Amino acid sequence: MHIDIQFVPFPPSSEILLNRAIVVIDVLRATSVIVHALSQGAAEIIPVSTVEEGLHLVTTFPRGSTLLGGERGSRKIQGFDFGNSPKEVTAERVKGKRLILTTTNGTKAFHSVAGAKEVVAGSFLNVRATAQRCLDLGRDILIFPSGDEGCFSLEDVVCGGMLIDLIARKSDTRIDLTDASSSARILYQRFEGSLVEALRLSRHGRDLEALGLGEDLYYCAQTDITDLVPTFSDGVIKA
Amino acid sequence: MHIDIQFVPFPPSSEILLNRAIVVIDVLRATSVIVHALSQGAAEIIPVSTVEEGLHLVTTFPRGSTLLGGERGSRKIQGFDFGNSPKEVTAERVKGKRLILTTTNGTKAFHSVAGAKEVVAGSFLNVRATAQRCLDLGRDILIFPSGDEGCFSLEDVVCGGMLIDLIARKSDTRIDLTDASSSARILYQRFEGSLVEALRLSRHGRDLEALGLGEDLYYCAQTDITDLVPTFSDGVIKA
Repeated sequence: MHIDIQFVPFPPSSEILLNRAIVVIDVLRATSVIVHALSQGAAEIIPVSTVEEGLHLVTTFPRGSTLLGGERGSRKIQGFDFGNSPKEVTAERVKGKRLILTTTNGTKAFHSVAGAKEVVAGSFLNVRATAQRCLDLGRDILIFPSGDEGCFSLEDVVCGGMLIDLIARKSDTRIDLTDASSSARILYQRFEGSLVEALRLSRHGRDLEALGLGEDLYYCAQTDITDLVPTFSDGVIKA
Repeated sequence: MHIDIQFVPFPPSSEILLNRAIVVIDVLRATSVIVHALSQGAAEIIPVSTVEEGLHLVTTFPRGSTLLGGERGSRKIQGFDFGNSPKEVTAERVKGKRLILTTTNGTKAFHSVAGAKEVVAGSFLNVRATAQRCLDLGRDILIFPSGDEGCFSLEDVVCGGMLIDLIARKSDTRIDLTDASSSARILYQRFEGSLVEALRLSRHGRDLEALGLGEDLYYCAQTDITDLVPTFSDGVIKA
């Protein structure tokens, strides 16, 4: 099994999309929110690129069936039902509901890899289950960190590195790593004892702390609170 | 001082080129060869993108004044005077000579940043002097690893990380790091005790070893054998 990780979130080639299972990671906070919402009983999540798209799409579903969430500049969007904080997507609010989500990096990442056969959502919250899914698929893997406004994002790459470490430890077959995936694993090992330290060092984590959203870093740095591995297919993310 | 490192070698924006001093790094082996050749007394080095360009350009200089070097697939190009191995560019061969060089990654990298005001060539061989030059310039820095056929290259990023570490330790003023430059520094710290280990782990290093060129890894992993910091200006690299 060959595992690569793409450090900068430009759209992969069609050859890569055809031949790889893809793990999208946006620790702060889109995939953490997605994993958490589905684990709390949300029916499905539709990632959209723009606020306007979200505002339009929600009107096409029966009233009361669908919630609108997302952020710009890490803040909840006016008129939306929730922002992009995992603590907002409780079972009481989301159970049985469809969520429409638009965020700065994460929902764009899903659209960048929409042509792939197999796309799953990874985060620290489900990292062990995601590693097991990758092993079960038995396909070459591309880990796709959502990045930070088009740039390399430390927290996503450390999560990708943990995923690589778990797969490499559990695999019966040889795992081929690229320079990038070896480096992600080394970065994970640096923060293994205290994952939240990576989130607090990252630019995006520091921004969230400055906005009073530091609690989210601690929430999103928890590992394996669910076995759920969301899949993205035909524009929709499901458990 | 703000220090960023670009993990994938696509051409930087014109805004970046205008506002940053740029350090091009190709440990295996272009900038190591360039630093070594100039330290051995070569007059100047002209990086060119293609073999054809090199073969043409050499005919425009007086016979005997100019040597032609470079590689494709890590091997010396037929009809060229030397390949891309630092041990080939001895004082006896290069002193007072102009070198024309074409390599897979490194010479392309110089052309990608040709619009910048200040471009220097970094390697382990001159890393401390390069850090001092960056401090003397007092400008924001972009470290530009040449990559491995367009992809992230571990050995270049570890060298960039060492450069960042030296600058951060020596600077009197605050150094702002991005997620990428923090990560490069962590990767360097992982290999601090044995830099050659990073070169031997890298894909390009393993390829060179498989081709019987493993000696070059040990050569290129030496630190601070010269204080020379080559600069690239108007298409020419000089001491």
